[in-house]
Amino acid sequence: MTPAFGLRDLHVAGSARAGVLRTAHGEIDTPVFMPVGTQASVKGLMPSDLESARASCILANTYHLWLRPGAELIRRAGGLHAFMGWHHPILTDSGGFQIMSLAHLVEIDEEGAAFCSHLDGSARLLRPEDAMAVQALLGSDIAMVLDVCTRYPSPRALLERAVARTLRWAERCIGIPRSDGQAIFGIVQGGTEPDLRVACAEALAAMPFDGYGIGGLSVGEPRDQTWPAVAAACSALPVDRPRYLMGVGAPVDLMEAIARGVDMFDCVLPTRLGRHGSALVPGGRLDLRKITLARRDGPLDPACDCLACTKFSVGYLHYLTRADADLARVLLSVHNVRFLTRLASAARTAILDGSFAEFHRVWTATNTGAAREER
Amino acid sequence: MTPAFGLRDLHVAGSARAGVLRTAHGEIDTPVFMPVGTQASVKGLMPSDLESARASCILANTYHLWLRPGAELIRRAGGLHAFMGWHHPILTDSGGFQIMSLAHLVEIDEEGAAFCSHLDGSARLLRPEDAMAVQALLGSDIAMVLDVCTRYPSPRALLERAVARTLRWAERCIGIPRSDGQAIFGIVQGGTEPDLRVACAEALAAMPFDGYGIGGLSVGEPRDQTWPAVAAACSALPVDRPRYLMGVGAPVDLMEAIARGVDMFDCVLPTRLGRHGSALVPGGRLDLRKITLARRDGPLDPACDCLACTKFSVGYLHYLTRADADLARVLLSVHNVRFLTRLASAARTAILDGSFAEFHRVWTATNTGAAREER
Repeated sequence: MTPAFGLRDLHVAGSARAGVLRTAHGEIDTPVFMPVGTQASVKGLMPSDLESARASCILANTYHLWLRPGAELIRRAGGLHAFMGWHHPILTDSGGFQIMSLAHLVEIDEEGAAFCSHLDGSARLLRPEDAMAVQALLGSDIAMVLDVCTRYPSPRALLERAVARTLRWAERCIGIPRSDGQAIFGIVQGGTEPDLRVACAEALAAMPFDGYGIGGLSVGEPRDQTWPAVAAACSALPVDRPRYLMGVGAPVDLMEAIARGVDMFDCVLPTRLGRHGSALVPGGRLDLRKITLARRDGPLDPACDCLACTKFSVGYLHYLTRADADLARVLLSVHNVRFLTRLASAARTAILDGSFAEFHRVWTATNTGAAREER
Repeated sequence: MTPAFGLRDLHVAGSARAGVLRTAHGEIDTPVFMPVGTQASVKGLMPSDLESARASCILANTYHLWLRPGAELIRRAGGLHAFMGWHHPILTDSGGFQIMSLAHLVEIDEEGAAFCSHLDGSARLLRPEDAMAVQALLGSDIAMVLDVCTRYPSPRALLERAVARTLRWAERCIGIPRSDGQAIFGIVQGGTEPDLRVACAEALAAMPFDGYGIGGLSVGEPRDQTWPAVAAACSALPVDRPRYLMGVGAPVDLMEAIARGVDMFDCVLPTRLGRHGSALVPGGRLDLRKITLARRDGPLDPACDCLACTKFSVGYLHYLTRADADLARVLLSVHNVRFLTRLASAARTAILDGSFAEFHRVWTATNTGAAREER
């Protein structure tokens, strides 16, 4: 395990957990939502915008940075924190998900993933060792192992093979040198089969990982299959290490996963919604293009302390969205990130003061409509 | 003339001038460069970004705001300052230039300009009185009269008719009620004919305007025809009122115009260049896409105090530009606006301390190459 890294001050309420995650670039209160910085920037936002939205950790995509500008260039620039001007924690994914979703002509065998770059078609090979070496050059605070991500639906035999290979790749990743203070997370696979999730989590729990991702969910499966798989994985993971549900960020999913023991989340949802003119609001989403919003004077959410809500009216955001103004995307992205960091923070407060069950119940009752819309 | 509005503390060095322009929303040090907020926002920038680039006054486009979201809506939202969250001075143009350049089927007669909206093709009529009434609803600090803008080249007879109508329209604008504390500027036309510029300026000088625009330049004419026209206009305008060269913003043009007695400038150049991946730098422009910039560690300009230069390397800006990341446009726009506000500020300092002639000479010697490239 990595010195100085770790989950401290853990409070548990039912299955929900609140803690403080110590990393090489500072502490993170959990549960935590991490916005995604695909191209060494969270789309359109300055680091100061992210700070104002109280983002404490961001996710960066290893696949994108590896292909452009290249990990060695970033290392020479002083690492990813210095390169992108973000001096708080960064988690890097391993690239496996992007290879599955973006690259062409992918062939995965025991050695690794051979594929063609989505940028220029060039042939590339990503082995578990490469994914770790790239992340070491980037110098992120948390590196993820390369895993074998499966689609939904997948036959059980394929899920079993993916779990077995994921475990072998995890073993290969552990020994690779990392950057100073860099933590390493294993990734639980197993699709929507709870017993495979348990088996995978138990095997990973026996390896010296600093924390654990739960991958391959929110990939199209119905939610009544998501939560048993999440709960199964959490039940078999070590209590004292953080659990990170990868790629999940709809408010209702955040809440359900927190209730089942997840500590960390990432998703492009808040920035993607923002770029498309939608705001996360209590009870659901608001499409800022709606003509009925043209003369609405108040903020998106009177309870929100983000830059968009404290400085601008819904009418102005409606106008910017209709005019396709760049500032609409910036302001709505900041608001949506803040919506999720506020939700994680409210859940944390409720866990710490013992009221999480009630908080969860009330929140769900007022956000059920939103739950359907958000998927 | 408008109470409280006016140019104070005027220092003159040769023909160059430095002063303080008092407006209803604060003071503006002159010479001043004003970034352009086409759609109630300077593209992609928050008000705080503009403040960080030391913009003290911005220009808003009457034509755009009139068509969408509408001037009455903005008035009901508390005026343009409240609507867009910019609590410093705003100058509004009159819409004449946009009608000429954006609208369809324009027919201008003595009454006004009949045209079809570039947004939806709807038929519209903009008379001088309408332009003033719209600006009163917007509540800008400085309103511009509706003028007759000519293209280059135009025959002298057409320029003469444009000047004559511009003067008649100016008379019609003066009597229209304005918003509280709103100043009104006349506009000097006359193309590249110095004697027409003098005649137009003299006629406008006899009317009770708070300041004067110089319009219809930088529309394709060679610069050796621009400067005599500017100098002629300035020579006939009242010394104690501000002169504003409309639509000009290339650094070398700013410097030449300041030397001839101009106080105010606006241009989309810094934000447009920023959106297209170019930075204003000492000696010219830098195309951030150039592959040779990939590993450059230092800032764009070590002397610049903008957000892009104090926080990010050229290598990072190159990467963002290549990746077509939204943040590239934001950071380069902030830098370019700051480049021009710094240039205006440096000219002001030189005027105040009596070294402007030397400053102008040295600056021109080191920026001549840029002068050619910038047009």
